[in-house]
Amino acid sequence: MPIITLTTDFGADGPYVAAMKGVILGLAPGCQIVDVSHAISPQAIGEGAFVLASVVESFPAGTIHVAVIDPGVGTDRALVAVELDEQWFLAPDNGLLAGMSQLLGKAPTTIHELTNPEIRRSRISSTFHGRDLLAPAAAYLANHPGGVAGLGPARTQLQPLAGANWSLSAEQEGRLVGQVLYRDRFGNLITNLRASHWNCEPGAAAYPCRLEIEGVAITTLSRTYGEHPPGSLLALTGSSGWLEVAVVNGSAADRLRADVGTIVHLIVEGGPTTPPLP
Amino acid sequence: MPIITLTTDFGADGPYVAAMKGVILGLAPGCQIVDVSHAISPQAIGEGAFVLASVVESFPAGTIHVAVIDPGVGTDRALVAVELDEQWFLAPDNGLLAGMSQLLGKAPTTIHELTNPEIRRSRISSTFHGRDLLAPAAAYLANHPGGVAGLGPARTQLQPLAGANWSLSAEQEGRLVGQVLYRDRFGNLITNLRASHWNCEPGAAAYPCRLEIEGVAITTLSRTYGEHPPGSLLALTGSSGWLEVAVVNGSAADRLRADVGTIVHLIVEGGPTTPPLP
Amino acid sequence: MPIITLTTDFGADGPYVAAMKGVILGLAPGCQIVDVSHAISPQAIGEGAFVLASVVESFPAGTIHVAVIDPGVGTDRALVAVELDEQWFLAPDNGLLAGMSQLLGKAPTTIHELTNPEIRRSRISSTFHGRDLLAPAAAYLANHPGGVAGLGPARTQLQPLAGANWSLSAEQEGRLVGQVLYRDRFGNLITNLRASHWNCEPGAAAYPCRLEIEGVAITTLSRTYGEHPPGSLLALTGSSGWLEVAVVNGSAADRLRADVGTIVHLIVEGGPTTPPLP
Repeated sequence: MPIITLTTDFGADGPYVAAMKGVILGLAPGCQIVDVSHAISPQAIGEGAFVLASVVESFPAGTIHVAVIDPGVGTDRALVAVELDEQWFLAPDNGLLAGMSQLLGKAPTTIHELTNPEIRRSRISSTFHGRDLLAPAAAYLANHPGGVAGLGPARTQLQPLAGANWSLSAEQEGRLVGQVLYRDRFGNLITNLRASHWNCEPGAAAYPCRLEIEGVAITTLSRTYGEHPPGSLLALTGSSGWLEVAVVNGSAADRLRADVGTIVHLIVEGGPTTPPLP
Repeated sequence: MPIITLTTDFGADGPYVAAMKGVILGLAPGCQIVDVSHAISPQAIGEGAFVLASVVESFPAGTIHVAVIDPGVGTDRALVAVELDEQWFLAPDNGLLAGMSQLLGKAPTTIHELTNPEIRRSRISSTFHGRDLLAPAAAYLANHPGGVAGLGPARTQLQPLAGANWSLSAEQEGRLVGQVLYRDRFGNLITNLRASHWNCEPGAAAYPCRLEIEGVAITTLSRTYGEHPPGSLLALTGSSGWLEVAVVNGSAADRLRADVGTIVHLIVEGGPTTPPLP
Repeated sequence: MPIITLTTDFGADGPYVAAMKGVILGLAPGCQIVDVSHAISPQAIGEGAFVLASVVESFPAGTIHVAVIDPGVGTDRALVAVELDEQWFLAPDNGLLAGMSQLLGKAPTTIHELTNPEIRRSRISSTFHGRDLLAPAAAYLANHPGGVAGLGPARTQLQPLAGANWSLSAEQEGRLVGQVLYRDRFGNLITNLRASHWNCEPGAAAYPCRLEIEGVAITTLSRTYGEHPPGSLLALTGSSGWLEVAVVNGSAADRLRADVGTIVHLIVEGGPTTPPLP
């Protein structure tokens, strides 16, 4: 049986996550459910997009991901099933999957709308489509691998992620403007800049680069935390490929008073090219 | 193999939950364990009853639920196995299962006391019967579906939930008194009033109703959050059928300074009947 | 398929735990993953050692435990696989497994270093060896039970746990000095004293003993919480065999302003022997 993952803003404390799991396991016994996170900030669609994007490449083909950050539950927003990179994604069409697709730099292969009235619970709450519509759809895909056409008609577009502009911009030659996308438990700040934008290898300095954040400049790209003394402020390539700002055994977020949305600049002085935009 | 769920006040941070899972999986390899919640407030038996009651209808027949909120561990309180709605419930007999039964409006089919000295670990801690007695009993039921009589002798009564009066009362014609049972992560306040007590359909007003809480009156029953602007204060039918007070994209608990135990009144003016008591 | 447990300081909120699970399940479909804790304090190797030690005896032979508290990730610290008590432990060799071994009072049977370049992901992040090296190694052991020699060459020693001195000391005849190892969710304080150090049975007083902590003396060893009124301060044998200080339905940590590292004294007056050191 395939893997089904769950990403929600429900919190792990209450009954909502378990209710979804009960419905899934009742309809698709034996599938393996993996919690990605239930601590997405309430209604924070962009944060959900980032967290889900961060785990996709770790899961095998055929995995079914369900994401429920759904402030529009019960209104006319659609629910969709998306194929991307041989994995399946079920979510409200509210920008989360579009944002994830943008972060991964990969477009969906197919998009279907979840309209089949046979694939839902017999009584549907107006406030909990995760349990009553998305969980049965995930179980259906687990029981019918690749059978996404059974869920409803195909579509060609996803709703974009409102309010989020995650594209990098080039203010001028050799100067990129990005932002912090995520703050992890350690206080590391993950940005939307890629290591490939830093025109030098870790430790080297072929072309002098610097990352500026909250008035502080970081001039070398480090390889890992433990090669510097505790308390050092670093830039490095994080585990998902994004440039990350960290303090060894400490919190960069606290040190810099920075958080999601904080602007970062990457300056490449004297390099032969403008860093490529993504 | 059947599903075994866990509801405790242990916190998910420490070693206690994993210890229970290790014992269960050692005795019943291959069963599927689902966490309902490990964040029940310490010793809060009523909160555990509510959270467990909220998920029961989502799980398939044959599911085995284990609940360990157990301030009396090691004293002479009994441990019991209860059948209700074709599912099994294992817990200390301290009111949790009686409270859950009351919230569900369904009586247990059978009650057995866990006294069989063969179905426990060889060494029993005085402070962790969840691991040493309840986990082996759950594994036994997983290995012997329906074999509850093997756990110990039948009983006819559960201990009631002390200090909790969750029954609605009718102060006078057309005026019901209820209370807040649970506050979820979003600050939604779930009450012990049912949607059927509101003598009008969502959005309609056949008989003028209003819900009063902390001096604020709500005069319409809404269908879902997203049909109102952010910040709106709503009453709606929550996903488990209880009347719920919510703020769109905000926290009703914070707005109203209300929490578990806060009194709510439902007033039906001019209706033909007193709303039925549950 | 065997059980794989995870103990980390990643937090359960972010994407890191799910990424490890995705890799494990992609390589070893069908194995059962159990979360021990993801709330170990950041970089707190000793706390990880305690939590993992607390659950070992609850898991069946053949269980594979993965522990990732790894401030030295990407430096030249080794990764190791250890057999102890017929279970397997994979972790950075940074003191965590040595500390766990000390707490359990059991030495590893075998130690192997994870150097086989075939048993890792094709691209290895410098900051997430849990996902890229330890998860594949755990999956390999799940697919090849007992095949630890395939992971790399044998070693004879583990790195000791720096900065932790968990041995008891005997200040003078009949006076043992220990410390608090762990504070659980209830505020119970678990020490490195064993019940066997208390020269009397619970409730009895063959030889007068007393436990002193933060200037308060506790003179009887209790059996469980519920045999005393709420608010009572107790010493008892905790569920893993360590002496524990607790307040009934309250928090001993808050009452005594004590925490991990707080010194405790156990005084046995007039006993025939010095309590044995562990």
